[in-house]
This record gives sequence, structure tokens and C-alpha cells, in this order.
Amino acid sequence: MKFEKKDILGIKELTVDEINLILETAESFLEISTREIKKVPTMRGKSVINLFYEASTRTRTSFEIAGKRLSADTINISASTSSVVKGETLIDTARNLEAMNPDVIVIRHSAAGAPHMLAKLLRQSIINAGDGAHEHPTQALLDMMTIKEKKGRIAGLKVAIVGDIMHSRVARSNIYGLSKMGAKVVLAGPATMLPRNIEQMGVVVHTNLEDAIIDADVVMMLRIQLERQNQSIFPSLREYSQHYCLNRTNIQLAKKDVIVMHPGPINRGVEISPDIADDPSCSVILDQVNNGVAVRMALLYLLTGGNE
Amino acid sequence: MKFEKKDILGIKELTVDEINLILETAESFLEISTREIKKVPTMRGKSVINLFYEASTRTRTSFEIAGKRLSADTINISASTSSVVKGETLIDTARNLEAMNPDVIVIRHSAAGAPHMLAKLLRQSIINAGDGAHEHPTQALLDMMTIKEKKGRIAGLKVAIVGDIMHSRVARSNIYGLSKMGAKVVLAGPATMLPRNIEQMGVVVHTNLEDAIIDADVVMMLRIQLERQNQSIFPSLREYSQHYCLNRTNIQLAKKDVIVMHPGPINRGVEISPDIADDPSCSVILDQVNNGVAVRMALLYLLTGGNE
Amino acid sequence: MKFEKKDILGIKELTVDEINLILETAESFLEISTREIKKVPTMRGKSVINLFYEASTRTRTSFEIAGKRLSADTINISASTSSVVKGETLIDTARNLEAMNPDVIVIRHSAAGAPHMLAKLLRQSIINAGDGAHEHPTQALLDMMTIKEKKGRIAGLKVAIVGDIMHSRVARSNIYGLSKMGAKVVLAGPATMLPRNIEQMGVVVHTNLEDAIIDADVVMMLRIQLERQNQSIFPSLREYSQHYCLNRTNIQLAKKDVIVMHPGPINRGVEISPDIADDPSCSVILDQVNNGVAVRMALLYLLTGGNE
Repeated sequence: MKFEKKDILGIKELTVDEINLILETAESFLEISTREIKKVPTMRGKSVINLFYEASTRTRTSFEIAGKRLSADTINISASTSSVVKGETLIDTARNLEAMNPDVIVIRHSAAGAPHMLAKLLRQSIINAGDGAHEHPTQALLDMMTIKEKKGRIAGLKVAIVGDIMHSRVARSNIYGLSKMGAKVVLAGPATMLPRNIEQMGVVVHTNLEDAIIDADVVMMLRIQLERQNQSIFPSLREYSQHYCLNRTNIQLAKKDVIVMHPGPINRGVEISPDIADDPSCSVILDQVNNGVAVRMALLYLLTGGNE
Repeated sequence: MKFEKKDILGIKELTVDEINLILETAESFLEISTREIKKVPTMRGKSVINLFYEASTRTRTSFEIAGKRLSADTINISASTSSVVKGETLIDTARNLEAMNPDVIVIRHSAAGAPHMLAKLLRQSIINAGDGAHEHPTQALLDMMTIKEKKGRIAGLKVAIVGDIMHSRVARSNIYGLSKMGAKVVLAGPATMLPRNIEQMGVVVHTNLEDAIIDADVVMMLRIQLERQNQSIFPSLREYSQHYCLNRTNIQLAKKDVIVMHPGPINRGVEISPDIADDPSCSVILDQVNNGVAVRMALLYLLTGGNE
Repeated sequence: MKFEKKDILGIKELTVDEINLILETAESFLEISTREIKKVPTMRGKSVINLFYEASTRTRTSFEIAGKRLSADTINISASTSSVVKGETLIDTARNLEAMNPDVIVIRHSAAGAPHMLAKLLRQSIINAGDGAHEHPTQALLDMMTIKEKKGRIAGLKVAIVGDIMHSRVARSNIYGLSKMGAKVVLAGPATMLPRNIEQMGVVVHTNLEDAIIDADVVMMLRIQLERQNQSIFPSLREYSQHYCLNRTNIQLAKKDVIVMHPGPINRGVEISPDIADDPSCSVILDQVNNGVAVRMALLYLLTGGNE
């Protein structure tokens, strides 16, 4: 199957067939990162620009490693050192980058829709590496890849997503993706962190952690953004963790073979108790990171016509 | 023709023959960036250090891409993360970099003459990527390349340069270069932004935009540095743009086939009205960016003996 | 000889045989940086992550160049742009990086012991690029390489180390290394900058520069960290330099063929008078930098099994 999309803007825009093609391609790339020589010449002479307007270690590094393992040239631009200090608009920056003929631009931006704007304007392939509270499609793809790897399938599973749903691009992308792939998605979080009418996305909503994780095959905990604490969304970290921290007790409500996921970075003891986060019998958090490189290799490969 | 210069410090130091050699080499490199595999092995095993003491997206990225397309190793050092925080002098930093045996050091610095000091001290080739309000030779070279590309020649053309001439290294390099190449250079800007005795450089000076652009073949608008606003050089942005913004009306004074240039980043509505900036029938701003990669490839190539 | 260590955490952990193997390997790599094509394919398809939690030009650049000359992929992560702003612990960051399958992680951190923690947790090779006031093993190795290069041997030499011994990881690593290699190490510094019981490391201690450098073969001056000035460790820079600055007069006390070293960046006129720092008949400061690239190439090579 040829991959027809020019850009990866969100899971909302992907078909089930496209998601399956991405996951299968990523699975076949996993092995490259275990080789003695972790490099294939697929993207030699192609350039990938990582344009990050928000701080990021793991996502930027994951894309950079993915590009380098495909032999692409990778160029990093971060907001702090870029001409944003000179007041240039995103559009002008993007048009300038376009004129330097890269093949793919990976963008993270605090404004929802920023990648879509670039995708419309530029002839290059755009990958959304997180836009505001909107989507983070590569995270959802690596999450789905991890679920499939551990459970053999996605369809029919019960997946609980817990935390600050309202501000989470990870939650939004996973709701789109997991629903498309046939999973049953259940959400939980304090009422102040649940978007109104979120049920319209076809999910079941609880304000209670326990109700959500009963019989879950997968529990996906979201990161609490500590910098939002003073915005009166929740009274205190302590109170939050009392009700929404996944621990040895409440995890008993889930299926025996439940897997625990987290997009990272973890606030240990806030979202997940340390013993659960580090328990290899349920935690797949580091598998997610490992799969992240493979998913990003797959996307770079497919967008630059690798499978044609 | 062999290229004899060790460094590219300014257009002032280049002969007409050298400028022509650089432009012709750059023209021949343009095609590489349009290939499927945008990479030639010319600089394999050579290292280029980008030493930037001022923020920059486009120039640093342009040099990095230029180096990578020639297969050079590129190393970025930016002031914010460098040992300048430890109070090391530029000379000691440079001598240290020299001892690591790079082949070319590209430097941007707020002090005029900084690249010249390095060039004298170090055995490596130095490229000036902008030194204070002094010179920005690679910008002038890409500007000349763009004019030649669009007009077929430089000699005999009327080129108007408009804006803050006093603080513009772009203006200074272009005045040197365009004059050498036989163009007629006309300047315009508020009196407070015109250096005294600038006429001695062989240019005609106006304090009025309209007078300058009459019958111009090329209009080159300079960037207003918003951070200087409080320095009483000009009363307000609004007043500046009323008198010096290129727009649909005043551009009629220029030749019918006038081209509009800007070194970027643009302050839309201040220096150029958005409709002119985005008008493909006159704006060549993105061609400038595209040519910038080729010019920098040409310089890296010539300085490392590529054409010998 | 096979190199058996998984990590390079400190000189304390290295045997004399291991130090000799590293130095000999580094000597054989020196020549690569003088070639027309400064690159060997040894580490093609391997990845080196430079994880720097403290600002650094020379060390990070030296590791980056070392990696690239061995054809490794190099990925830089600096604290200012990393997820430390999101409050992630070092351990979680490290485990995440591990899951991306790099081959070597080079870490600089303000906390003593940080590299050791990573080495224990991760399967990757860790290189300590400076941990707090603890060790800076690659600096000591390049120092020993430079001494051996200039003097033909290390054993039997008198080496004076002068300055803020207490806060210097460079001093500590060199004391371990030089003592192991048979040199006689003498320290000098103000009483407030000398750790208690430092004599237990087998060194002679003076509070007087002159006493320390009498008949010295090597004088190694340490950097004064200006940011510590207000911590009442010493009264003023002026007073410090009056007593501890190496100059044309006091250097007469050392052997005629003394060599002068400094880890950089130099505070000229504080630790060394400029005429001594720049005197090619005694200063080997830039040889240290040059050897630094070779030492780091040797370590990357040995840790990834290059000599097996």
C-alpha cells in the first residue's frame, strides 16, 4: 500500500488502513535500533528540520535519532535560539525554511493548528510533534504500537485514560486513534479537567479513577502539568494524587495482565506510585520510548516515499 | 580560476573576479538542492563550526544545511550555551576551536571586526556571518546572485536600498558589492538612520522613499530593528511605516519589472506591505533564501580548495 | 589488550594499564585530525548522546568532534532546552535515553556521582564529562597525554597543581592519575581552597605558589571560578592574583624546561600572566585542547569495542 498523506497532522485525519500501515512499518524498523550498525541508507541526502517552539528532550531527541538512523541530515531549531526573538511570524519562518529545501519539517508549537497552517502553505511534509492542547499524533501512534505489541491487538480492549484530559494533546490523539482501532476508551479525571461534551467523542467518562480502571486492559496515565497548579484547576498536588495516583491497591481493579502507560516525563508519586512505574510486570513506559523511535522512523520513511 | 582568499570577511575585500567566481560557483550548486539525493561528497571528513554570538535562525540554518549538503560535519555553538558565560575571551575561544582542527569557522558577533581578528590569528578559514553594523558578506552575495538571476546582470541597474542604513551590515555589504559590480546604488532613510558622509561610498542619498525608488530596477528594503525603538532614532513605528513602507502605491514609481528584496525577517506592514511581500510578480524574498544555501555551499567549497 | 571497563567514571577507577592503553590509543588517533579527510568509519551507525547539565563549549564540542571523526551520530542535549524544565528526574531522563538505544552517553552534571548512578542503571557506556567538584577524567587523561608527549614520560616528574583545589574536579582527577603514573604531585592554594586532609591522597601541600613550583617539571594552573567570589573563599581577585598568578618572575623557580598547563577557559592575569599563557616555549595549553579530541576519540573507540 502506498502512503498517500503529505503530512501527519493528527490521528483524526488518518484512516484505519493508514494507521495499520504506519504501525506495521514501525514494527519492521524496531530491529534496526538493535543492530551493531544502527543505520540504513534510506534517507541519505534528505533533510529533516526539527522546529521546536516548546522545550522537549524526548520527542526532539527521538525524531533526531530516527532521522539519523535513516541517514537523513537533521537540523534542530529551538525557539530560544531562533529568530522568534526578532519577532518573525511562524509563517515567515516556515516559508524561509521551505526555501532551503528540506524534505520534512517536524514542528512542536504551543498554538493548536500551527502544523496545519504550515502543511497548507508549504510543499514539504509536516509532522505535528504536539500542537497546544490539540494533537500529538506520534505519541498516540507509539502508544498504539505498544498496546499492539503487548496485547497482540487493539480492537476490543478496554483502555482507561486518566488525568488532565482537558489540556492533554496525548489524550485527544489517543481517543481518536484507539476508538478508530476498535478499543473501548474510558476517561477519568477531576471534573475541572474534563472537557464538556467529551462523551460526544464516543468515550465513557468518570470523575473517579476506580470506576474507570475496573477490568481495564490498559491504563494510560497523563502527566500533570505542575505549572498549571496555580490556575485553580485542582486544589493541590497532594489532593490530586490522593484521588488519581495509580498505586498497588487500586491497580487490583484492572485486569490481571493490565499494562500501565505514561507519555512521560513522570511526576513520580503524583500520577503513578514509583513501584508501579518501575514494575516490569505491568509498566511498559520504556517500551513506549523505544517504539517512539521506530514510529518516527516509519513516518519519515513513508512521508518521503520510502515504500513506493 | 583558483580562489586565493583564506577568509570571507567582507565584500570590501573581494575583487570583481572573486565575486563572479563565487556567484558562478553558487549558480552551479543551486541544482543540488533540487535533487532527490541532495548531497555531494565534496567536504566529507571536513568540519565546519558555526559560532554564533547572536541569535539567528535563517543564517545558521542556511550554513548548516550548506555544510551538510556538501557532506561536511557541522558543529553549532551558540553564545547562550557556550563558555562565554564563563567569561572566556573570543580570542581564547577561537584558539581553542582552532586546536580541534576544524576546516572553517563561521562567526556571527555583535562586535564589528570580530571575524577579522579571528582570521588574523587562526590558520582556519573564517566566514563572517555578520559582525555588528559592519558587514554581512554572504547576504550581499546571495542578494547579488538573486539580482543576476532575475535581471541577467548587475551592471547598469538602479538599486534602491531603503531603511536604517546606519545600523545595517546588509546595506554596507551591498553598497560595496553592487558598486563594484557596476550597479547604481541609491539610498533612502530618515536622516537619523543615514550615516554622515555616506555619499563618499559613491552612492546617492535621499531622505525620501519616493525619490529613491523612481525608475529602480531593484528595491531592497532593510529590516527595522524593533529593539532600537526606544533609542530615539525614530519617533514611532507608525510614523516610520507611513513614510518608508513599500506599498502598492509607491512601488508604481519604480520600473515595471522591479524586483523587491528583503534580508528577513520581515516586519510586515512596517517595511513592506504584506501584499507586496507576498506578490510573486515582484517579491524575490524567498529566492534570496534559496540562493543563500547555494552561496554558502560555494564559499565552503571554494575556501576548502574544492575548485583546485 | 582488551578494554574491559563499561564506563569512564573517574581516574580513581582506572588501572595503570588501562590509562596506558587509553593514552596509546589516543596517540594513534592524533594523526586522523591532521588528515585531509578527518574521518574514519569505526563508529558508523553508533550514536553518542552528549547530555550536558552545565554550560560548556570546549568539552561538548570536543566530544562532538571526536564522535563525528569516528563517523558516529552525535546528539546534543543541554539542560536549558531539555525536559529538566519539566521537572523530570535525571534517572527518568536517563532511562528514556537508554530506551532509544544510543551506544554511549556523555554526561556533565553539577552533582557529584551523577554519572555513576547512570552507569549502574543503564546498559550503555557512560563517560563522565565532569561531575560537580568530583572528577573530570577526560581532562586528566588529556593532561597526562600532553605531559607524556612533551616530557616523554610521567613517572618521576614533579607536577605542581595550583589554585582552588577544593572545588576542582580537574585537580582531583589529576591527583589520582598522576600519582598512579608515578609523578610527584605538589599542590598550592590559599588555605580556604585546600580540602582538609588532602595529604592523605599522597600529595605535598603548600599555601604558597613559590614553594610548590620549585624545580617543577609541570605547572598546572586551575581556573578560578569567578562566580564563587562572593562566597568569602578569597578576599578579592586582585589579592588572589598577587599571590597565585604564574608570571615571568615566579616561573624562574621551576625547571628550565617547565611546561605550563591550564584546563581553560583562562582568566588572563588572574591565574597566568598573558605573556606566559601565550609563550610557546612553555605553554602547552592548546596542545591540551588538541589532545582532548584524540583522548575522547580513544575512549569512544575503546568503550564501543573498537580494539577487540
